[in-house]
Amino acid sequence: MTRGRSGASYNPPMLTFADVEAAAARLRGVAHRTPILQSRMLDAELGCEVFLKAENLQRMGAFKFRGGYNAINALTSAERDRGVFAFSSGNHAQAVALAARLHGCRATILMPSDAPAMKLAATRGYGAEVITYDRYRDDRSALAARLCAERGAVLIPPYDHYDVMAGQGTCALEIVEDVPSLDALIVCVGGGGFLSGCTVAAQAVQPGIKLYGAEPEAGNDVQQSLRSGHIVHIDVPKTICDGQQTQAVGERPWEIIRDRVTDILCVDDATVVAAMRLAFERLKVVLEPSGACALATLMAHRERFRGQRVAVTLSGGNIDVARFASLLA
Amino acid sequence: MTRGRSGASYNPPMLTFADVEAAAARLRGVAHRTPILQSRMLDAELGCEVFLKAENLQRMGAFKFRGGYNAINALTSAERDRGVFAFSSGNHAQAVALAARLHGCRATILMPSDAPAMKLAATRGYGAEVITYDRYRDDRSALAARLCAERGAVLIPPYDHYDVMAGQGTCALEIVEDVPSLDALIVCVGGGGFLSGCTVAAQAVQPGIKLYGAEPEAGNDVQQSLRSGHIVHIDVPKTICDGQQTQAVGERPWEIIRDRVTDILCVDDATVVAAMRLAFERLKVVLEPSGACALATLMAHRERFRGQRVAVTLSGGNIDVARFASLLA
Repeated sequence: MTRGRSGASYNPPMLTFADVEAAAARLRGVAHRTPILQSRMLDAELGCEVFLKAENLQRMGAFKFRGGYNAINALTSAERDRGVFAFSSGNHAQAVALAARLHGCRATILMPSDAPAMKLAATRGYGAEVITYDRYRDDRSALAARLCAERGAVLIPPYDHYDVMAGQGTCALEIVEDVPSLDALIVCVGGGGFLSGCTVAAQAVQPGIKLYGAEPEAGNDVQQSLRSGHIVHIDVPKTICDGQQTQAVGERPWEIIRDRVTDILCVDDATVVAAMRLAFERLKVVLEPSGACALATLMAHRERFRGQRVAVTLSGGNIDVARFASLLA
Repeated sequence: MTRGRSGASYNPPMLTFADVEAAAARLRGVAHRTPILQSRMLDAELGCEVFLKAENLQRMGAFKFRGGYNAINALTSAERDRGVFAFSSGNHAQAVALAARLHGCRATILMPSDAPAMKLAATRGYGAEVITYDRYRDDRSALAARLCAERGAVLIPPYDHYDVMAGQGTCALEIVEDVPSLDALIVCVGGGGFLSGCTVAAQAVQPGIKLYGAEPEAGNDVQQSLRSGHIVHIDVPKTICDGQQTQAVGERPWEIIRDRVTDILCVDDATVVAAMRLAFERLKVVLEPSGACALATLMAHRERFRGQRVAVTLSGGNIDVARFASLLA
């Protein structure tokens, strides 16, 4: 499980199910095994049998904890002594901050200055040093490289890293263990770490399952990539889905997504808001916009899944009451 | 399990653990086994280990489904053919409406005209006939008696009924099965059906567990009753906790509460709102005011539970976004 840092010694250098199983063993007793929610009213409305993986009930409020913890746990103690570094619009920041604290190591996090206030505060609350930048103007990569070098810290990337991908995949492993005979699994996609990890895990246990990525319409780079066969880069998309404002899918996730994901389906922000309302009023759970993206995608593309058994990730719930109320007003 | 309708044949006529076990058998595969949530941040803040039973994730959004379903399931088919009747400020209404539909029988529900719009709509949505009244002016008992007689329907009372109490008790049965060695269980109390059922179930499995009722300060009739040793009646209390606007505890619940509940603790509406916010932002779940009452009570009385293992019911989540936002504004 050190392949994320020494991929050259393996052939092919691609995420395997053994990596996901190793991550699951590391996360046992540390991450929550989140529940699968069902609603007969929702099933009737959408015309399919829906299994909702409530990953918003995960520690720190999103699936990102799995990948962040797995990656830090895979480091040597000498590496952990150097401290870790991450850049993220929010949930990966909190994940690395919390996972670092659980391992007793320092964390420095580079976050966009317009990240939700709650995410900035929570990341600081876990004891990390937070540095902000302007996501529409500053060169994040250059800033990140400089900061990381200055501190001598180990970079924990948000998605383009095998240990992160393997950790995220444990979410789908729980789904396919808990729900037999699924036709499809819909997972939100930004940089692709969650979707690729979930694809490897789900198809290892249920080979016939079809994987779908859910992406905001305003930033459909992964859809363009899958349909064109090569990674497409876009400008920072303007969408309420702040967890999915990536400009391109990661190279390691792409190795999986390219060949094994059936399609990327897009959804507009208004439907994401409708999914947040539905989750609140019918399911009694709180979803942030990106956390509702997969459910919104199922709502928008329901005809494609008619009569099927469909699992959907409710991937995060980190939003404060004020922002939630203003989005749903 | 027909004792709710023929108590005279039993001695003593009191809820037993066997009743709760029979209810659990009836509800298996019908009610959700709701998850226990934990938050290390909450534990640190409250100074105790907290186990939150997310009964807001129950079918129709509250524990009331358990009692309503159990009571209707216990009827003879001849009784069910007559249809059922209930009066309720909301969640019992929805519970009876849904349980009736699952049994293929008619339901008529008498509800206060100022019940939350979402609860009125949901009850109608389950196919029940809803009749409204003014809870500060009309004589609900007289109205109920007349309507029930006119229709020849079987009354399913909201709390003062052994089958209802037994059904509600299955919630605590799951708690004590899932969480060993609890010191205390805090349950919201209105008419006492939930608290009495939970007391019988919890103490049968964990004899040392202390039971506490959580009641809004503005309507502390059960606290007065427990402290004075007899049932105290009050005017309809004005509180945001619309599920707890009862004027007196029921006689059958009182048989249990009187002798076996350690104390009734009260909380003000402002703390209930704070608990709703905490549940939203930290736990990522939606609670209606009465659903947050037990958690709010733990927050207000935390010094009493310091260092203990405490289970708390999150008993319902039926609130729409607009009312939630206005209460938390």
